[in-house]
Amino acid sequence: MIDITEQTIEAALAELAFNAEGLIPAIAQQYHTGEVLMMAWMNNDSVAETLRTGRVCFWSRSRSKLWRKGESSGQFQVLKELRWDCDADTLLLQVDQSGVACHTGRRNCFFKAVRGGRVAEIADIEIDPDKLYY
Amino acid sequence: MIDITEQTIEAALAELAFNAEGLIPAIAQQYHTGEVLMMAWMNNDSVAETLRTGRVCFWSRSRSKLWRKGESSGQFQVLKELRWDCDADTLLLQVDQSGVACHTGRRNCFFKAVRGGRVAEIADIEIDPDKLYY
Repeated sequence: MIDITEQTIEAALAELAFNAEGLIPAIAQQYHTGEVLMMAWMNNDSVAETLRTGRVCFWSRSRSKLWRKGESSGQFQVLKELRWDCDADTLLLQVDQSGVACHTGRRNCFFKAVRGGRVAEIADIEIDPDKLYY
Repeated sequence: MIDITEQTIEAALAELAFNAEGLIPAIAQQYHTGEVLMMAWMNNDSVAETLRTGRVCFWSRSRSKLWRKGESSGQFQVLKELRWDCDADTLLLQVDQSGVACHTGRRNCFFKAVRGGRVAEIADIEIDPDKLYY
C-alpha cells in the first residue's frame, strides 16, 4: 500500500495532460529489472484508484470500463511508483508484476521484433493462456 | 547499422496497427540498462526510416513532420532492436541514447513522480538545455 493522501492524488491528477478522450498512455515497467511489461491507457478515475489502492487499474478502451489488471487472470500489478514525463502526457508505472503481464501467457507483451534481419517472436509462453482466463 | 532488407521493413510495417491518424506510440528504452527514456509517436515513414538507417526517427505531432531525434540537439538514438506488442499497437525501441533524451536536459523524460507521499521531481538536469538547442 502506498502512503498517500487524497490531496496528493488531486495534486498529481492536476498535473496530468489527458488527451481529448480523457486518456493518457501508461507504460508498466517491472520495477527491479527494468523490463517493459506492457502499455495501456488510463483515465482520471483509474489513475486515482491506482494511487489510492496501490493496485494498477487501467481504462479498457475496447470495453469502455475500468480494467483492474489481474481481476480475471490473477496476474495483478502492485504499484511501486507512479511517474510522468516532461509533457505530463505519458505515465510510467513502476510495478511488481505477479506472474505474466501478457494475455498470451508471456512475461511481457513485446515479443515481436525485427531480429536477425527478419520478423521474429523473441519470447516463449510461460503460462498457458487457457489457464489464465477460465 | 542494422542489417535489414526492404522486404523485412515491409513485413514489419504490415504487422503494425497504426491508429486512425496513422500513428503508433513508441517507447524508447536504453538497451543495456532498461531505463525508459521517453515515449513519442511514429508513422509508417518514420518506422521505415528508423529501420533503414538505424537512427531513431519519430513523427512530431506538434510540427506535423518527421522528427529525427537529435537533429537539432545532437542527442540522437541508435536503434538496437525494434519490438512491438501482442496487439501490434505499441512499439518498444531498444536504443543507445547519446547524452540525454529529454529536452529539459535530463537523462530521461520521466522525472516527475509521486514519492514520499507528495509530487516530486526525481532527476537532476545533466546538460543545460540552452546548450542543447542553439
